[in-house]
Amino acid sequence: MRMQIITILTDFGMEDYFAGTLKGVMLTRNPNLVIVDITHTIPPHDVRAGAFTLGAFYPYFPPGSIHLAVVDPGVGSDRRPLLVEAGGHLFVGPDNGLFSLILDRDPAARLRHVTSSEYFLPARSSTFHGRDVFAPVCAALSLGVAPERFGPIVTDPIRIQFTRVEVAPDGTMLGSIIHVDHFGNCVTNFAWDQIRAQSGGRSVRLQVREFAIDRLVTHYGEASDRPLEPFLIAGSAGFLEISLWCSSAARALNLAAGEPVRLLIR
Amino acid sequence: MRMQIITILTDFGMEDYFAGTLKGVMLTRNPNLVIVDITHTIPPHDVRAGAFTLGAFYPYFPPGSIHLAVVDPGVGSDRRPLLVEAGGHLFVGPDNGLFSLILDRDPAARLRHVTSSEYFLPARSSTFHGRDVFAPVCAALSLGVAPERFGPIVTDPIRIQFTRVEVAPDGTMLGSIIHVDHFGNCVTNFAWDQIRAQSGGRSVRLQVREFAIDRLVTHYGEASDRPLEPFLIAGSAGFLEISLWCSSAARALNLAAGEPVRLLIR
Amino acid sequence: MRMQIITILTDFGMEDYFAGTLKGVMLTRNPNLVIVDITHTIPPHDVRAGAFTLGAFYPYFPPGSIHLAVVDPGVGSDRRPLLVEAGGHLFVGPDNGLFSLILDRDPAARLRHVTSSEYFLPARSSTFHGRDVFAPVCAALSLGVAPERFGPIVTDPIRIQFTRVEVAPDGTMLGSIIHVDHFGNCVTNFAWDQIRAQSGGRSVRLQVREFAIDRLVTHYGEASDRPLEPFLIAGSAGFLEISLWCSSAARALNLAAGEPVRLLIR
Repeated sequence: MRMQIITILTDFGMEDYFAGTLKGVMLTRNPNLVIVDITHTIPPHDVRAGAFTLGAFYPYFPPGSIHLAVVDPGVGSDRRPLLVEAGGHLFVGPDNGLFSLILDRDPAARLRHVTSSEYFLPARSSTFHGRDVFAPVCAALSLGVAPERFGPIVTDPIRIQFTRVEVAPDGTMLGSIIHVDHFGNCVTNFAWDQIRAQSGGRSVRLQVREFAIDRLVTHYGEASDRPLEPFLIAGSAGFLEISLWCSSAARALNLAAGEPVRLLIR
Repeated sequence: MRMQIITILTDFGMEDYFAGTLKGVMLTRNPNLVIVDITHTIPPHDVRAGAFTLGAFYPYFPPGSIHLAVVDPGVGSDRRPLLVEAGGHLFVGPDNGLFSLILDRDPAARLRHVTSSEYFLPARSSTFHGRDVFAPVCAALSLGVAPERFGPIVTDPIRIQFTRVEVAPDGTMLGSIIHVDHFGNCVTNFAWDQIRAQSGGRSVRLQVREFAIDRLVTHYGEASDRPLEPFLIAGSAGFLEISLWCSSAARALNLAAGEPVRLLIR
Repeated sequence: MRMQIITILTDFGMEDYFAGTLKGVMLTRNPNLVIVDITHTIPPHDVRAGAFTLGAFYPYFPPGSIHLAVVDPGVGSDRRPLLVEAGGHLFVGPDNGLFSLILDRDPAARLRHVTSSEYFLPARSSTFHGRDVFAPVCAALSLGVAPERFGPIVTDPIRIQFTRVEVAPDGTMLGSIIHVDHFGNCVTNFAWDQIRAQSGGRSVRLQVREFAIDRLVTHYGEASDRPLEPFLIAGSAGFLEISLWCSSAARALNLAAGEPVRLLIR
C-alpha cells in the first residue's frame, strides 16, 4: 500500500484546533497518508506570503504530492475553490492568488473549479472550508479520484505579480522585497540566475530607501568581519536577498515586504 | 499492520524538548503509530483553553483514535491520571477539567483512574508525567492493552462548566466568551443550533461590555463592506462568535475568555 | 518494510519554507520515513540552546534513530558537516558545538567529517546546507548507507562546556543556568543525581544574583502554598531547576541562560 504525501500550509496559527482538524478529516478518509506540516503561521490573511512560501518548498517534494494551501479571507463568499495540476504536483485551495508562483513556473498548468460537493463534508460551514471542502477534496485525490471529477476547467485564476522586474532607461532594474524570513533576511524578486548571467562578473549595487548595498557575499560567514554592514547574497529560494550577519536585516533597516528596491549592474 | 492514530495536545510550547520526547517514548514502544500534533501552545497551565480545543477537534478524527492531552499544573501531586472512553475515542491526561466538553457530550463516558504503574516509565519524575506516565499509557493502549487493565472506575472527575447558559426573567440569555482564537474571533458559549432554533428567524442582539452587536452574517466576506464594525457569525466549533473583517475582534474590543455576554432574541 | 525514524531540530522558525523543505528532500529519497519534528524554534543561531535540547530528548528515542540538527550560523564557510555515532543513535549537523552533550555522555562516540558530495543535492547553495547537505545525508543513512561511506574520522570536534561545575575552597559549587524553558523554569548545570548523593539528606541553598533559594520541593504543586516564592526542583532533564508556581521564574527573577549560580550543601 503506497503512502500518499499531503503537505499543509495555512495561516491558522499553532494554538487552535484548526490545523489538527484538517489532519483528522483526511486521516478519517484515508489512513495511508503521510501528512507533512509546512507552516501554519503565514501571517493571518496574507495571501502574498502564502504564495511565496508555497512556491519555495513544493519543488523539493516528490512528483505526485498533494499540497493543501489555505489562506482564505474570502471563505464562504463566491471565491472559487481550486484544484491545480502543475509541475507534476496537485494543489488545492482558494482562488485568490495563492497559486501565482506555481502558475508562473508551469504555463501548462491545468486548473479546475472544485464544484463536486459529494466530496465535501456533509455539514458544510461557511467559515472553515479548510476542514469542510479543501481537506476532504485532498483526501479524495489521495484515494485516486481523478482531477476531472472535481469540476470544470478554469482559465482566469486570480494571480499576484511577484516576479516582474521593470528596467528603467538607464538600465536600473526596479523590483521589490517580496518576503522577509524568520532570520530577517529580505528576499527581493531579482532572480539570482538572471542577475548572475546579466552582470557577467561586474559588481552590483542594490538601493533600498536611503541605503546603497554593494557587498555581495557567497555565504553568511564571509560577512562576519563587518557584522553591522548589510550585504547581498543569493538566497536559497533563488532570489537575491539583503542580509545581516547573525542578525535581522529587516529590523536593522526597517524593511518589510512590498518595499521597492533598485538594482544597478556596474 | 494497522497504524494507530495518537493525537497530542499540550501547553509545552514549541521551543523545548518536551513534545518531541513524548513522541520518542511512544514510538519506542510502538513504531506503528501515526502521531498527530494538534497544538503545543495552549497557554501555560490554561486547562480551560485545553478543554475547549480538545472538544473542538476530536470529533473529526476516526473512532478508535487515542488523544493524549497534557495541561497539567498539578503534575506530581495527588491529582489523578485519567483514561476516558467517550464517543468511541480514548483520552489520556490529568483529572483537572481537561475532559469537561467530552463528558458533556457523552453521558455514557467511562473514566478510569490510571494506577497500573507497570505501564509507566521505570524512572518516573514528579515534574513530567506527560513523558513518564501519559505517553507510555497511550503507547500501551495503542498496542491493544484493554482499558480495564489501567485502573479502577472514576465517577467524580473534575469538570469545568462551559456550556451552561442562564436565562434572565426578561428572556435575555447570560453566557460568556469561552475562547479567543488565533484570528481574534471571540467564541461565546451560545450553541448556534440552539440559538437558530429559538430565534426562528427573528433578529438577535449580543451585548458585551458597552458594545451592542446586531449584525449577523453567514460568512466573513459579507462584512467586508463595513470593516470596522464587529459582527456575529456561527463559528466552526458550533458556537456564536464575535468577529471583525480581516482583523482581531478581541484586540479591537479588548475582550478575553471569561468576559460575560448577553444575548437577546427580538 | 521497516520505517526509519528521523527527528529534526532547527532554528528555522515555524513560518517559512525551511523546515518543510527538509522533509520534502528526505521523503523524495526515502518514502518509508517517520519524520518527527522536535523543534524549529531554537533561538536563531543559538548553538548552546540547540545542544541542550538535543541532549535532553534523544535518549527517549529508540536506538538506531537518526537525528538531524541544524543551528548553523557558519553555513557555507569551512565549518565541517559532521556525522556522529553515539549511544546507538546517529546525528547529522554542523561542527560548532551542537553535539557537545552527546559527546559528554558517550566517550566512545565516533565522528566523521561528511565529505562525500555524491550524497548531497546536485545544486548546492551556500546558505541552506540543511536542505542541500544534511537532509540528503540523513536520507542516505536511512536507506542503509554505512557511516564510513560519508567521510573520514574527526577527533577534534568543537565542544561547548555545559556540565563542568567548579568547587570553591569552602565547598560551594559554582555553576550556571544553561537553559530557560517555555514555562520560565531555569535549568542549572547541577546534575540532580550528584547533588542528591553529595547532600545525603542535608539541605541545599542556591544563590543566584541577590536571591538565596532554600526551598526544595518534589513536585510543583507542593509550592502552591507560597506562589510568589521561587523554589528548587529536580527537573525532567536531570538537572536542578529554579521554578515558580504556575509562573515564570526567569521573568520574576530576570534570569537568562549564562547566569552564574552557586550551590551550598549545609
